[in-house]
Amino acid sequence: MKKAVVFGGRGYTGGELLRILSQHEGIEVIAVASQGAVGEPIWRYHPHLRGFFKGGFVSYEDALKEDFDIAFVALSHGEGAELVKEIYEKGKRVVDLSANFRLKNPEDYRKWYSWEHPFPELLSESVYGLPEIHREKLPEARLISGVGCNATAINLALLPLTERNLLNAFHADIRVGSSAGGAKPSEGGHHPERSRALRIYATYEHRHLAEVIQETGVNGEIRITAVELVRGIQAVIRCELKESLSEKEILRIYRDRYSSEPFVELCPFKPEHLRFPDPRWVTGSNLCMIGVKLHPDGRTLTVVSAIDNLVKGASGSAVQAANVALGLPEDMGLRLTPVYPV
Amino acid sequence: MKKAVVFGGRGYTGGELLRILSQHEGIEVIAVASQGAVGEPIWRYHPHLRGFFKGGFVSYEDALKEDFDIAFVALSHGEGAELVKEIYEKGKRVVDLSANFRLKNPEDYRKWYSWEHPFPELLSESVYGLPEIHREKLPEARLISGVGCNATAINLALLPLTERNLLNAFHADIRVGSSAGGAKPSEGGHHPERSRALRIYATYEHRHLAEVIQETGVNGEIRITAVELVRGIQAVIRCELKESLSEKEILRIYRDRYSSEPFVELCPFKPEHLRFPDPRWVTGSNLCMIGVKLHPDGRTLTVVSAIDNLVKGASGSAVQAANVALGLPEDMGLRLTPVYPV
Amino acid sequence: MKKAVVFGGRGYTGGELLRILSQHEGIEVIAVASQGAVGEPIWRYHPHLRGFFKGGFVSYEDALKEDFDIAFVALSHGEGAELVKEIYEKGKRVVDLSANFRLKNPEDYRKWYSWEHPFPELLSESVYGLPEIHREKLPEARLISGVGCNATAINLALLPLTERNLLNAFHADIRVGSSAGGAKPSEGGHHPERSRALRIYATYEHRHLAEVIQETGVNGEIRITAVELVRGIQAVIRCELKESLSEKEILRIYRDRYSSEPFVELCPFKPEHLRFPDPRWVTGSNLCMIGVKLHPDGRTLTVVSAIDNLVKGASGSAVQAANVALGLPEDMGLRLTPVYPV
Amino acid sequence: MKKAVVFGGRGYTGGELLRILSQHEGIEVIAVASQGAVGEPIWRYHPHLRGFFKGGFVSYEDALKEDFDIAFVALSHGEGAELVKEIYEKGKRVVDLSANFRLKNPEDYRKWYSWEHPFPELLSESVYGLPEIHREKLPEARLISGVGCNATAINLALLPLTERNLLNAFHADIRVGSSAGGAKPSEGGHHPERSRALRIYATYEHRHLAEVIQETGVNGEIRITAVELVRGIQAVIRCELKESLSEKEILRIYRDRYSSEPFVELCPFKPEHLRFPDPRWVTGSNLCMIGVKLHPDGRTLTVVSAIDNLVKGASGSAVQAANVALGLPEDMGLRLTPVYPV
Repeated sequence: MKKAVVFGGRGYTGGELLRILSQHEGIEVIAVASQGAVGEPIWRYHPHLRGFFKGGFVSYEDALKEDFDIAFVALSHGEGAELVKEIYEKGKRVVDLSANFRLKNPEDYRKWYSWEHPFPELLSESVYGLPEIHREKLPEARLISGVGCNATAINLALLPLTERNLLNAFHADIRVGSSAGGAKPSEGGHHPERSRALRIYATYEHRHLAEVIQETGVNGEIRITAVELVRGIQAVIRCELKESLSEKEILRIYRDRYSSEPFVELCPFKPEHLRFPDPRWVTGSNLCMIGVKLHPDGRTLTVVSAIDNLVKGASGSAVQAANVALGLPEDMGLRLTPVYPV
Repeated sequence: MKKAVVFGGRGYTGGELLRILSQHEGIEVIAVASQGAVGEPIWRYHPHLRGFFKGGFVSYEDALKEDFDIAFVALSHGEGAELVKEIYEKGKRVVDLSANFRLKNPEDYRKWYSWEHPFPELLSESVYGLPEIHREKLPEARLISGVGCNATAINLALLPLTERNLLNAFHADIRVGSSAGGAKPSEGGHHPERSRALRIYATYEHRHLAEVIQETGVNGEIRITAVELVRGIQAVIRCELKESLSEKEILRIYRDRYSSEPFVELCPFKPEHLRFPDPRWVTGSNLCMIGVKLHPDGRTLTVVSAIDNLVKGASGSAVQAANVALGLPEDMGLRLTPVYPV
Repeated sequence: MKKAVVFGGRGYTGGELLRILSQHEGIEVIAVASQGAVGEPIWRYHPHLRGFFKGGFVSYEDALKEDFDIAFVALSHGEGAELVKEIYEKGKRVVDLSANFRLKNPEDYRKWYSWEHPFPELLSESVYGLPEIHREKLPEARLISGVGCNATAINLALLPLTERNLLNAFHADIRVGSSAGGAKPSEGGHHPERSRALRIYATYEHRHLAEVIQETGVNGEIRITAVELVRGIQAVIRCELKESLSEKEILRIYRDRYSSEPFVELCPFKPEHLRFPDPRWVTGSNLCMIGVKLHPDGRTLTVVSAIDNLVKGASGSAVQAANVALGLPEDMGLRLTPVYPV
Repeated sequence: MKKAVVFGGRGYTGGELLRILSQHEGIEVIAVASQGAVGEPIWRYHPHLRGFFKGGFVSYEDALKEDFDIAFVALSHGEGAELVKEIYEKGKRVVDLSANFRLKNPEDYRKWYSWEHPFPELLSESVYGLPEIHREKLPEARLISGVGCNATAINLALLPLTERNLLNAFHADIRVGSSAGGAKPSEGGHHPERSRALRIYATYEHRHLAEVIQETGVNGEIRITAVELVRGIQAVIRCELKESLSEKEILRIYRDRYSSEPFVELCPFKPEHLRFPDPRWVTGSNLCMIGVKLHPDGRTLTVVSAIDNLVKGASGSAVQAANVALGLPEDMGLRLTPVYPV
């Protein structure tokens, strides 16, 4: 068993790491650290995990003393960079689930995050932790970056097109559940305001676009709407293709790209109501479902992807990348059947 | 007091007519007909109206015998055409809330509804019942058509642009609540399936597009997603303008068009989270709220409109049109403050 | 037109006062005060009221200078007591929607609120603002207390029994929407935690029990569960009667008590699924619906009441009491038909 | 690997059996039968299972020909009795998830189901499939009955008391999600009606009470409310104890009973908001969480249990019982960590 430590275990991605690792046959959690909750039981913040993690949160200092094989850092953007560096310099493997090490170009942090990266020299060390793209680099990686949830829904939807240079432009309409906003109470997340909301909070751009451009090479528009959902992201993307294709050809392109991917599933063309995935069909799983529909003009394609933002959009991809990095089977602990209806 | 009869009073638009008319100072409901529920109390299907309508449903035959000034027909598409004709030929005023008399061109019914219109000669008699467009024709009208809920959200969002010939093309992303599907149980409307669903059931086209083309003269794309909401429609429309404009100019265009409209409200530019309307802000009211945001390119404009599908998208517009037709103040019975949060 | 000032206009009961008064033919709002939002537009916190209140919040000082007939104080418990005293001592009418002046006995504030009342001498001046009980005292009242939302659901359900000394004991199971918790973000109100929650936060007792005991003379148990609902309270009360009665007799007792009450409605015995009211049937209205079902033992009675916590449970009752106090028709501005389904 | 066949695989409990068995290391599904969907792909009705079950539904006839070790019959009450008998008489093991074989006394079927049991002689053969009660009988059992979801929430909550003869009477308030009503559309399950509903559809009695009386020996009252939830049951039970006890003693009694049960978890006494379980904390898992709170009178106890109605309340218990019957580890395939928040 590989030994893992989780830093920032109190939030939703931290809780989700624990949920996944609670069933993992190859990775064991030996400490869960949360600076603000030292000594409190883990189930205080994750009541569903009561039977799975009996202990309490420890301090970062104590967690760092543990003899672990890998650390997962699930802190807010900006917060954990120093900690990640410290772990990395100890010669240990670390996965940072935040945006801290996702982008390669320090300039991108200035542009998209208004942030001067404190350790730009580490950016070239980091591997973007989406195994569907960077699988072969992961075994060597000691610093792995988590992925942006919105970016992942878009990237997986577009990769078959962008890798073949078929995509001219795209407009992504993202619908997202409230857990993507984190565990901290806020005016916008207050139930009477957020329940059944249709709040558009990004119209043409969003930070996650930086990850899309970096990983696919294509720029586009992103619009994000908060919808009534706790877990789940649906990306509805209107694509302009560079050349005219038939729906069959597009399906073949997607199949070629994804048939051997364990966590990407293509939707059927029929019946029509199952053609585009609902994020509820992947709840609790590491799956990304993708459906496509071509416009009669042959150049406009709608691609819809659905993920669980806390799993494939965060902690699931992190564990998947960690599996590869640790030499474990890539799908270990991640063969989670979606829970539906819920 | 003008006297009204409601046919098809058992469904949601029927119930909403009754709710609105229960507070109307100029129109009195003298009979509510439902062929399948004759003799049953009205509150059997509308428990919220118990204190407002004590009686029961009557048959169409009995309702037709009443001495009414106006009839509202709230039946499914296709169903009520004969009944409407009968009322019309009696020389009475009638509002058909279905699609039966919305389109002017019989050919459009073939194309969009696969329906051979039984009374094509009546189509030219009918006035499309959106007072914001056809106010001046309504006083003469005896046959008034209700409006499509999705079409209304789009039409009101686009009119200021199309009337000035500024719009080149549009892609409308419609998010719609479950009441738009009607009161009849269905597989897609079954709670475990429909709750929190993100079901895309139209990708490039939808029947309501016919009303948009007819009323604005511009063709475009419509995508519809069923979302977790009972009441409400949000139309998020990406517009390509024919010429480059500033946001200020666009705001002026919208203000010019709508400043004297009693039921259209423009959203402020600040704070950013109130720029685009959430349909929850108009629940129960006859309002249409509209917000705009220009892309830095000056040619791409996002327009978002929000209506209550059962009010401005159906029964509210019907009463508004009836008010004008009957010579009553246009906003009579319709000064309903939205209920929020709910 | 009577002139009203609203203090604490930023919260949910404040917003609801404004919604109701926006349609009131006899009371006009001349100022809305919020100490923390002076100068901000009212629609910043109540986006649904944008077309109804164009102005901004003023300070308490400025509001106090206005020449008003009545003040509504919609602040949190404890907060507004001094302000209310000041208004009262100016010789003006004031309705305090908080718990500050609900209880007659200062001792009760110690027991239930752990609060030493700063102005115990005012408690005897105050009239508990539920017109269904204290209608005749209101015309003389200058200090009127708002009502507790849970207490009102229980009181209206039990009054016909307690006034005839028929009730021995009761266990009330209250299900409540999130708006009852107020507009301030909190851990428990954070959407991912609160959505679809079934959180029991009072098991045997609750502060509102003090109002039930005071107004009905009967003690009992209260259990409160937060459920997925923004607006609405359902009180399901298991009553032990002092004597055996038939269902018909009970119905007659309730009818006798409530047939002339404008805002209390009894549910039918049939069909069975309409026997007990769902709070969704009264959304946005000042109604309290009540249904009863007798156990075959003749001594156990289930009484279920449903109200909109922000209307009959708060701002609606406040306006109703104000109407009586100001000599206006009691139902003025309150004949609001419920919005359903929503 | 043991071989299983699922009859009635199209409904929610059928789908849930497939979800659980998709991850089961000791049971393999070799055929899924649905009389109304022969030839259709399984994912047509269970889109979340697309990557797990590639095949289609077969007929009962074809399924019966398979060489299976155990059959799960997930049909509506009444429907599958003949089929179960047929399988049983072939000498195979069968679990009937419906109520067909839950009750021992044929008279009970007349009373609670108005049903003349067609095979009363089989009732004594059947083992009630709640391993927490009948674990030791299961290895011999060839006919196993599934459990009622409401009954299971109550039985697990009460067993520690009833087995020690401590319980005098109880009133159970059950809150239940929409999936408990099955996959077939209905008026009551139609989204606009069911969304956020608080519909009380049983006041004093419910069929599942028969199972409670049979398994605990104690009679009581059941009230059931449909709440906004797809999955989940919360049973809030007010118990009258036969003798006065301290909270510590009660906790000890519950711990003694359940400390070695793999799927029953007791909630902590602190913090207060985690004392009573929310069904969301067990979503997707086979867990039953239980919390207790004693009234100061020492005789009144509130016990709250929470289960996922489709897992511990149906398919999970069925697999758990099957595991024992087949000689597999009892928790095999059932160590499912709950998915939260969702």
